[in-house]
Amino acid sequence: MAASGGSTGEPATDLQDTEFSISRVQLQVLPHLSSYLPDTLLPVHINPLHHNPFFHPSHSFYISPTDIVLRHIAHDLSGTFPPPSPRLAYLRAGPHHQVYFKPSEVRAAIVTCGGLCPGMNTVIRELVVGLWELYGVREIYGVKAGFRGFYSVEPLRLDPKMVDSFHKRGGTMLETSRGGFDLHKIVNAIHHRGYNQVYIIGGDGTMRGAVKIFEEIRSRKLRVAVTGIPKTVDNDVGIIDKSFGFQTAVEMAQQAISAAHVEAESAVNGIGLVKLMGRSTGHIALNATLSSRDVDCCLIPETEFYLKGKGGLFEFLDQRLRENGHAVVVVAEGAGQDLIPRTESQREERDESGNLVFLDVGGWLKAELKKWWEREHPNELFTVKYIDPTYMIRAVPANATDNLYCTLLAHSAIHGVMAGYTGFVSGPINGNYAYIPLDEVAEARNEVDIRDHKWAWVRSVTNQPDFARTSSGMNG
Amino acid sequence: MAASGGSTGEPATDLQDTEFSISRVQLQVLPHLSSYLPDTLLPVHINPLHHNPFFHPSHSFYISPTDIVLRHIAHDLSGTFPPPSPRLAYLRAGPHHQVYFKPSEVRAAIVTCGGLCPGMNTVIRELVVGLWELYGVREIYGVKAGFRGFYSVEPLRLDPKMVDSFHKRGGTMLETSRGGFDLHKIVNAIHHRGYNQVYIIGGDGTMRGAVKIFEEIRSRKLRVAVTGIPKTVDNDVGIIDKSFGFQTAVEMAQQAISAAHVEAESAVNGIGLVKLMGRSTGHIALNATLSSRDVDCCLIPETEFYLKGKGGLFEFLDQRLRENGHAVVVVAEGAGQDLIPRTESQREERDESGNLVFLDVGGWLKAELKKWWEREHPNELFTVKYIDPTYMIRAVPANATDNLYCTLLAHSAIHGVMAGYTGFVSGPINGNYAYIPLDEVAEARNEVDIRDHKWAWVRSVTNQPDFARTSSGMNG
Amino acid sequence: MAASGGSTGEPATDLQDTEFSISRVQLQVLPHLSSYLPDTLLPVHINPLHHNPFFHPSHSFYISPTDIVLRHIAHDLSGTFPPPSPRLAYLRAGPHHQVYFKPSEVRAAIVTCGGLCPGMNTVIRELVVGLWELYGVREIYGVKAGFRGFYSVEPLRLDPKMVDSFHKRGGTMLETSRGGFDLHKIVNAIHHRGYNQVYIIGGDGTMRGAVKIFEEIRSRKLRVAVTGIPKTVDNDVGIIDKSFGFQTAVEMAQQAISAAHVEAESAVNGIGLVKLMGRSTGHIALNATLSSRDVDCCLIPETEFYLKGKGGLFEFLDQRLRENGHAVVVVAEGAGQDLIPRTESQREERDESGNLVFLDVGGWLKAELKKWWEREHPNELFTVKYIDPTYMIRAVPANATDNLYCTLLAHSAIHGVMAGYTGFVSGPINGNYAYIPLDEVAEARNEVDIRDHKWAWVRSVTNQPDFARTSSGMNG
Amino acid sequence: MAASGGSTGEPATDLQDTEFSISRVQLQVLPHLSSYLPDTLLPVHINPLHHNPFFHPSHSFYISPTDIVLRHIAHDLSGTFPPPSPRLAYLRAGPHHQVYFKPSEVRAAIVTCGGLCPGMNTVIRELVVGLWELYGVREIYGVKAGFRGFYSVEPLRLDPKMVDSFHKRGGTMLETSRGGFDLHKIVNAIHHRGYNQVYIIGGDGTMRGAVKIFEEIRSRKLRVAVTGIPKTVDNDVGIIDKSFGFQTAVEMAQQAISAAHVEAESAVNGIGLVKLMGRSTGHIALNATLSSRDVDCCLIPETEFYLKGKGGLFEFLDQRLRENGHAVVVVAEGAGQDLIPRTESQREERDESGNLVFLDVGGWLKAELKKWWEREHPNELFTVKYIDPTYMIRAVPANATDNLYCTLLAHSAIHGVMAGYTGFVSGPINGNYAYIPLDEVAEARNEVDIRDHKWAWVRSVTNQPDFARTSSGMNG
Repeated sequence: MAASGGSTGEPATDLQDTEFSISRVQLQVLPHLSSYLPDTLLPVHINPLHHNPFFHPSHSFYISPTDIVLRHIAHDLSGTFPPPSPRLAYLRAGPHHQVYFKPSEVRAAIVTCGGLCPGMNTVIRELVVGLWELYGVREIYGVKAGFRGFYSVEPLRLDPKMVDSFHKRGGTMLETSRGGFDLHKIVNAIHHRGYNQVYIIGGDGTMRGAVKIFEEIRSRKLRVAVTGIPKTVDNDVGIIDKSFGFQTAVEMAQQAISAAHVEAESAVNGIGLVKLMGRSTGHIALNATLSSRDVDCCLIPETEFYLKGKGGLFEFLDQRLRENGHAVVVVAEGAGQDLIPRTESQREERDESGNLVFLDVGGWLKAELKKWWEREHPNELFTVKYIDPTYMIRAVPANATDNLYCTLLAHSAIHGVMAGYTGFVSGPINGNYAYIPLDEVAEARNEVDIRDHKWAWVRSVTNQPDFARTSSGMNG
Repeated sequence: MAASGGSTGEPATDLQDTEFSISRVQLQVLPHLSSYLPDTLLPVHINPLHHNPFFHPSHSFYISPTDIVLRHIAHDLSGTFPPPSPRLAYLRAGPHHQVYFKPSEVRAAIVTCGGLCPGMNTVIRELVVGLWELYGVREIYGVKAGFRGFYSVEPLRLDPKMVDSFHKRGGTMLETSRGGFDLHKIVNAIHHRGYNQVYIIGGDGTMRGAVKIFEEIRSRKLRVAVTGIPKTVDNDVGIIDKSFGFQTAVEMAQQAISAAHVEAESAVNGIGLVKLMGRSTGHIALNATLSSRDVDCCLIPETEFYLKGKGGLFEFLDQRLRENGHAVVVVAEGAGQDLIPRTESQREERDESGNLVFLDVGGWLKAELKKWWEREHPNELFTVKYIDPTYMIRAVPANATDNLYCTLLAHSAIHGVMAGYTGFVSGPINGNYAYIPLDEVAEARNEVDIRDHKWAWVRSVTNQPDFARTSSGMNG
Repeated sequence: MAASGGSTGEPATDLQDTEFSISRVQLQVLPHLSSYLPDTLLPVHINPLHHNPFFHPSHSFYISPTDIVLRHIAHDLSGTFPPPSPRLAYLRAGPHHQVYFKPSEVRAAIVTCGGLCPGMNTVIRELVVGLWELYGVREIYGVKAGFRGFYSVEPLRLDPKMVDSFHKRGGTMLETSRGGFDLHKIVNAIHHRGYNQVYIIGGDGTMRGAVKIFEEIRSRKLRVAVTGIPKTVDNDVGIIDKSFGFQTAVEMAQQAISAAHVEAESAVNGIGLVKLMGRSTGHIALNATLSSRDVDCCLIPETEFYLKGKGGLFEFLDQRLRENGHAVVVVAEGAGQDLIPRTESQREERDESGNLVFLDVGGWLKAELKKWWEREHPNELFTVKYIDPTYMIRAVPANATDNLYCTLLAHSAIHGVMAGYTGFVSGPINGNYAYIPLDEVAEARNEVDIRDHKWAWVRSVTNQPDFARTSSGMNG
Repeated sequence: MAASGGSTGEPATDLQDTEFSISRVQLQVLPHLSSYLPDTLLPVHINPLHHNPFFHPSHSFYISPTDIVLRHIAHDLSGTFPPPSPRLAYLRAGPHHQVYFKPSEVRAAIVTCGGLCPGMNTVIRELVVGLWELYGVREIYGVKAGFRGFYSVEPLRLDPKMVDSFHKRGGTMLETSRGGFDLHKIVNAIHHRGYNQVYIIGGDGTMRGAVKIFEEIRSRKLRVAVTGIPKTVDNDVGIIDKSFGFQTAVEMAQQAISAAHVEAESAVNGIGLVKLMGRSTGHIALNATLSSRDVDCCLIPETEFYLKGKGGLFEFLDQRLRENGHAVVVVAEGAGQDLIPRTESQREERDESGNLVFLDVGGWLKAELKKWWEREHPNELFTVKYIDPTYMIRAVPANATDNLYCTLLAHSAIHGVMAGYTGFVSGPINGNYAYIPLDEVAEARNEVDIRDHKWAWVRSVTNQPDFARTSSGMNG
């Protein structure tokens, strides 16, 4: 292909030849039970869907191990910008013609770990209903109380009738907890209870735990397939297009931003301050800001900010109050962690999932705003209303979009496990459901690209400063 | 690449070589003003964003005419299933370094045609705000009353202050209408009023009209760029991932399905019947059904059904009422059009957009159900509650997901027009915003693939029959 | 008392004496089991609440048979307007110190009849929970399928665990039906099954049936207390302040009016037409109109209207479209019944509850509007969008206001029944819960007083005509 | 009348005579402009409504100064419980035949003070629309920024077009503030600007300020009518049935309780803690608890509680967690103020309205709960999720019920002012709109009566302890 273009702006019609090739695409291979178990232990069966009248499997119904989906699909034909190397591809998700489990011998375990996220109950429901209705599995267990539940609590037997209305409820009916990860106790319990399919729903810490469980199971050569379903309302997991619950969270965040806007505009020099979820990434804050348009400033972990001096937050708000009488600030919970003074103990402390303890940027910012105004405008009215809607957002049921998404995630996971894959995650890549090695997902991060148009659009919508310090503004 | 796989189900780990190439990808070239206007009439300018402090355009900020996105990204490495030929690619959407309009000379016209769809006002708002804030355009006009408004009504001057809260309102503040397409009057009016950018928001009929407008403008060699923004709550437009307003519609449809479910389960032998939008495609019905799970049967235009006899709808409902006491049926407005008896005049009539007049499948089905029960179970209680939520769905404001989507659509359209492209549509392809030739979109349909897993899932969720007639069931 | 006032408008400060008396208040006595059963069959017990630690009944806790509440509480001290004669008073509702049922011998039956109304499930729930928790009753039965369920279906045993989340669901979990009223079969069944408390939830036809059941029980001298809980989303029952579900219906109606408003203002000469519940009264239409303020004309059964000629609806809409470009019309389902042409059979037909068959005023009006425009403005655009949200309104769960109201209604009914009253209804009178003879409620109507300020306010808000025909406008 | 009853429980049918009288009712007389201004300064006019075609005032349309409504309408006929002495009555609200202002000379001022409450904007809207449409007033001013706005900010001229959509927005478009009450500056400004009608919307502190303004105006003999519209989302104002915005707040509180319930049940030993508005009264907490039924314990200012020891909160929660695994606690913001340790400065501090500074009972209780569990169950999982939805509740628009209520309040106030009354409040008394002397309302409190059935019902619903300390439980 000979693209005459480049970044000079000539129209594409100058292209001499509009046909091209893409070379050197690398397929990310999945772990499979057959890679560490002998064939004799892995008899193959025809997929029960084959005889299911609702499916009428046709030629194109099954996914074969050679069906793949491309991850890097945007290209620069001019070659000016080198492509990611290698370009990656993943196996497509879906039912396989041959399965490695006989339905009657399956004992599936489902566990939820970490904080709440809209859609957890839908995922649980669909794992149960999918295993039962699609594959005829009858032994499905809910592990309660997170990882520690494997070895410390009796499991809950689940069936479709029991989970029927789960998708209309927020939270997780299996209860959840942080921590409690004891690798050997967990794998012993899996072995002891005879589970041969393990579905693990949780955040990044949980996914790292799931990798260890998978590896231990593989090293013990157990016939147990492990799959992870990333749960992160923050949408901070990489490779997959988005995580479940995220869209619902962005919807719900609108309500908090609206309230903050009303509080701000109903006061003299009113500031509405909303803290939204997002420890390491600002996706909820960014999406909620772009969807709402009532936000004057959006602060996210991916970009630094400072308070005082030229180009700082105070200067910006001062100007905005003068012009408009009020302002709304959205701050992601992980923003500004470097600015908040920490006590010695706060510098050491970590939560049960091993994450750094986050300081409350909302409370801190509220206090700093009040001090600033008192200092700069001691005799003028001023109001800061601070809203932290976290638990009111994450505890709602999934909306329709997320409900459907959770269904597809859960069914994809089941198909993969039944096909004998293990140590993997299912999820949409460029809109196509695919299987991704679990360790790859556990490490991948999805940060807001602040050089991207979307962040530029936030700034153009909000007109907020870029907090790119000039030499004269270093005292924030 | 040598994929040893195939459809036999061996795991991907058998693949000898996991690197491969994709050849013969065809880029779909866009019309451009420069293709029919001489350079002298098309001076090139540096994008005003270049000096906009909110954008800090970096190396990677601009889209070049050689940046493309792949459309066909799922492949069968085994070669068993031949790939689409040719595989297609499209230009990526985004700001270009060089633009073909000086902001001060732009006169942009925005028109909305056809029925309502959540998000129309957001698209209008973002076209206005985007042109104004990103590119400094100051002359932006709303054409009222649809196509006929070009030549029969004074336009409405728009500015950011005026459209500020449009995204919180359903419908279109520009008013809309069907029909009124008079090519020469429209192009004369465009010329006469000095519009050089025309943004046309409407359904498939409107897009076909937009193609004609673009072609007439090109043949007159006018320096006017035309772009179409497909508005179809039914999500029946092809190539792009989804149309705006669709997610909102699916959310709102939940409410109607819930009500139908409550009515049905509160009666003895109660049937809740919901008609949802979808003239030629059943996407809303399908998605609403999968999201809700209270639906027992989902009827869409893509698949035939019949009422009587073995395997028919009546038999299915009879059984469901016996087992469960109630049932919920969702029917897309375009389903069953062949089953409804038509009068002579109904066989001729067409609406103003040239579409066949649709018969009311909901009212017909309600009457047929009552007749059936009266015939078969004359002394038993029976209730059908029929809900047509169409106007309560399509008149709501866009939800957060759709609001953001409308913003990206509108901004993509603006960037493309400013870069001199014309006769195109912007929209997401596999999650990446791209530009597609307008005539291609005007012809492309997005139907529900009933051989796909998603439809199979509907059937497995609902357990509804497949209406594949057997020889003994031909009397429906 | 010597009020010097009168209707002449002098301020109240002219009153010589501000103390006065109200004479001749008539207490409406309730039927009581003791009025037809000998004391030997009616042993009296101490209310179990007396030993309930949650109640700590104090001196003022119990209601005595001499606690009354006034119904007519507005007076004209001048005597210019004669007061209602006699002024009425009713027994206050609440727990009595002595009860006429031993909890262990109670067998309570609950039945729901007629159409759906928000809050039915809450009433059922609270009857069950109240009987169980407050009085220790353990035998509580749900009669399914309405009146006919007494003699044709096995009842459903109810307990608090079973009904725990009923209040979050719309409709009635007992199923409901119209008709099926066979007095002797019903009373026989009550006797046969040993029910001694019967709670009947239904509309005006149901209340008339309940009167007959009560009278038959009394004439048979059965020790069975009967109470009615009026269910009428239309709020058309008299004496009590309002009926349950009404507030929820008015809330939900806003959504339909909003949609109609959006449809109307998004079209050229657009009319949004909404039909709301209200067969004999226009309370929902009136309240929804006053709450919304997007309505241009509100048509209710209490006031006649006409279409054509001077002062008619068409003239009004013509003017409104000219001035404003769009209009919203709300019509109660019982409005205009005299205007709609009836076929011979429609003049005879009645529904199962014995009500006249209502013709569809919405569909008729939509058609008339289209004919009118076609006739008067054949070449101008015109759109009527007709929304009938009935089932989407009545099938929702009760909102918080109605949930609490249903609780108080249910508990009041239980207290009255336990105290031996029968043939009564509980409900708020001027904000105080009271007991009213069942036959009085069955006959009382609550119509919109169109001479009242509230209706005048509707007209001043909407500026709609009063349809008081002048001699020249008689051709409608 | 000879009621033979008493509190012994005999049925009312024993009553010999069911007719009775009520003596010694005292009418609460309103201040009126004519009481301190000579007739020559107070010409009387016919109400402009008289010629308004929308009102067709009939005989019964106007309220006369002798139309009254009873406040104490519940009686004990036995005389066992002495009635309130005196029984009170108030003037009914509504249009008078004669008015004391000529529309063309009216200059009305509207001010909002204190915190936000759903419906403030509706009250403003309806004052403007009512004055304009009903009485033809054209000079209506919004005083911005609360009381201080009278003397420090230019007022905002208001008209119906400007306020048209106010009722769909939360907060107050006039901005509000606390404090700033300077009596002489305010009355001087009223005089100076020529306002002759002053509508003051605010809480109890504001009402006390309004009394002073009224008294100062009267002592200066200014022809200025003053009316107060109590704004208290807490529903803590006495005499009137309820305050505006309260129903909306109870609805919104359901969402927070639901979220707390989900958080609690999704954790091991999970407690959901919700703080609701209510500084001196627990109405929102009580109503939200009764409406929701997901609450295990409701703590309000009217009743004391304690944490430790027998019968304390910890013991109760310990038991509930053991039985049920989770618990939800609702606490009104004014509850437990005596239990929270105060620093010296906190004992002195008062807010700008003169109220005692409230300590954050939610934060304190959350901390105490964590300490307790750590102490008592150091090795068991435990989670407290604390939700403070205050700003998300009070910033929403009024729901339909409150919108209508605000309209009636505003119109009642206008009618009273036009009729020459001053120093009054309008509001519903037993469902009838009436006028109450402003000073009476400013002092009246509406507390939850914890000896009443409703509070007993809370306790029976929640099974929570009564915190009536026994001698052994005094260490809390």
